Amino acid sequence: MFNITAPLDKVTSQFVNTLQDKIDLKTKPQGSLGLLESIAFKVGLLQQTLEPVFIEPSVIIFAADHGVADQGVSLFPQVVTEQMVLNFLQGGAAINCFSKQHGINLKIVNAGVKANFDNIHNENFVNSPIALGTENFAEQPAMTKEQCVAAINKGADIVKQQHQLGCNVIGFGEMGIANTTSAAAIMAAILNLTGQECAGKGTGIDQQTVSLKAQVIDDAIAKYQLTEADPLTILQTVGGFEIAMMVGAMLKAAELSMLVLVDGFIASSAALVASEMHDDFLQYTQFCHQSDEQAHQLLLTSMSATPILKLGMRLGEGSGVAVAYPLLVSALTFLNEMASFADAGVSDSQ
Amino acid sequence: MFNITAPLDKVTSQFVNTLQDKIDLKTKPQGSLGLLESIAFKVGLLQQTLEPVFIEPSVIIFAADHGVADQGVSLFPQVVTEQMVLNFLQGGAAINCFSKQHGINLKIVNAGVKANFDNIHNENFVNSPIALGTENFAEQPAMTKEQCVAAINKGADIVKQQHQLGCNVIGFGEMGIANTTSAAAIMAAILNLTGQECAGKGTGIDQQTVSLKAQVIDDAIAKYQLTEADPLTILQTVGGFEIAMMVGAMLKAAELSMLVLVDGFIASSAALVASEMHDDFLQYTQFCHQSDEQAHQLLLTSMSATPILKLGMRLGEGSGVAVAYPLLVSALTFLNEMASFADAGVSDSQ
Repeated sequence: MFNITAPLDKVTSQFVNTLQDKIDLKTKPQGSLGLLESIAFKVGLLQQTLEPVFIEPSVIIFAADHGVADQGVSLFPQVVTEQMVLNFLQGGAAINCFSKQHGINLKIVNAGVKANFDNIHNENFVNSPIALGTENFAEQPAMTKEQCVAAINKGADIVKQQHQLGCNVIGFGEMGIANTTSAAAIMAAILNLTGQECAGKGTGIDQQTVSLKAQVIDDAIAKYQLTEADPLTILQTVGGFEIAMMVGAMLKAAELSMLVLVDGFIASSAALVASEMHDDFLQYTQFCHQSDEQAHQLLLTSMSATPILKLGMRLGEGSGVAVAYPLLVSALTFLNEMASFADAGVSDSQ
Repeated sequence: MFNITAPLDKVTSQFVNTLQDKIDLKTKPQGSLGLLESIAFKVGLLQQTLEPVFIEPSVIIFAADHGVADQGVSLFPQVVTEQMVLNFLQGGAAINCFSKQHGINLKIVNAGVKANFDNIHNENFVNSPIALGTENFAEQPAMTKEQCVAAINKGADIVKQQHQLGCNVIGFGEMGIANTTSAAAIMAAILNLTGQECAGKGTGIDQQTVSLKAQVIDDAIAKYQLTEADPLTILQTVGGFEIAMMVGAMLKAAELSMLVLVDGFIASSAALVASEMHDDFLQYTQFCHQSDEQAHQLLLTSMSATPILKLGMRLGEGSGVAVAYPLLVSALTFLNEMASFADAGVSDSQ
């Protein structure tokens, strides 16, 4: 569906060597800036320049409701999805604070909340619901194939618009009561794991509810024979509108050579679907935060992803992207501003 | 030597409960901001307010040379200490870039570099060497007791001056060729470990040199009977002027109820000495980065410290403090700016 080429295929080997030399000849022992060095290299490569910069950094929050909430898998009532969308629009949520702190543009997308937002007028709000929440996948597929494709395309459109404003670094967050169940089901189906291996405490449910959640996942995988299914079918059957929009948004961003910042567990499940659909997708990503959600480590490992942070957070909303953003800026700052051994007259190693 | 009281002894239990409630009633699942919540609590407690703020954030780099460099324990020639001090003053080092990025005041202190800086005039430079480098502790104690106490007092004085400017959050970095050997020797002596357990690759030495470094440490511990010694004697015998100044600086900052930001392996060895000297010291600290230096994890564990970052960095200079600083700000930002469930009309958990 998207045209994604490996970044290394777009540049010469001479460019790659020059970029690596620029990193290595800064006044520091080689490799001593750790992950910041890999990030600097990655962003230079994506932007095909020795002086990469971030322009119009953006976080898009996709919000939607989940029919599977009816199974009693969440600690919070479903109405909280709507309430939190309003909180985002009023500027009171964690992601608002962190985005403001770092000058990140924030957009809120109604991907399919079980509520009517027709009377909301806010320049940062995109009201494009696919439906009033998904169906309960314990009973029938969460969405139709048409709905799933529409959500993917809508996510892609929104990224295209941000790109047209000059944005070259974009992260995705989500809000949706019960969406860890959806994300865990996607993970289990794609990676051929059990519900127990993928279900976690979400917003803070007890062990009994975690077991229920695991059972809901195992039942769905069996019912729809998902271990045999392609990623699009899995997304359609147990996914959510916000997850499907994230898949389209992530793939479009990679197609446009933007750096894709991946948030926590739910965003990672979208990245997993995207990586199954396009081999080279992951080369455009930077995972930002390993969530406290128990299955996230396994999910990250399955994609060989090294997240920047591990702060024990488990909030979603793109919060992991926003708090990690200054570290991405630090990577570009050292690449662009630090003196080289030659500049500073410092002796290199003996 | 310093008057340090446990932060909890300075406030009422009512204040503690109100602060915790303020954190818990923000529009997020309880605990979902992970480490940021503990940091917000800690800073509120130290500042004895529900609206803590950071004022005049500062990083002080202490630089000094080490006689033990003569044992061939470092990859870089000793002259690099002097060259890097000049690089700091010219603004070309990693710490300059990161401090500038975050509006952190940076001061460079000549604690005892083997060089003459008398003709340097820079408002951010403090030229107060204890001597032209320490003695080689393979042959004799690194410094005299008088030198060690003078260094501790000088570190304390510098912090007192920053505090008078309003500074309430301060981190310490260091520069000194061969100072991982000194830090590892301090760690081994205090924690009763072997040289092999504490010596690492430093700036990037090979395995043979790591073994040599471990032997130098074991020999010194045996020669001076350091497993029986008090922390001040250990600091004097195998420490460095920059490490001793950091010890005094850290303890003074705690005495003044400032938040002490601890950088990597060498700064952590200073924190270990400080914690051995004053029981309640660690309650004023936030460890910022777990270094790639192999023994750092063990050193952190010995102090029950949870660092904010683990980026595979191993540079020193206070670089771990500076890149972690925006996350500390995020902790205060959510505490001060996020809406509560009541403010936002969001339903709490069921």
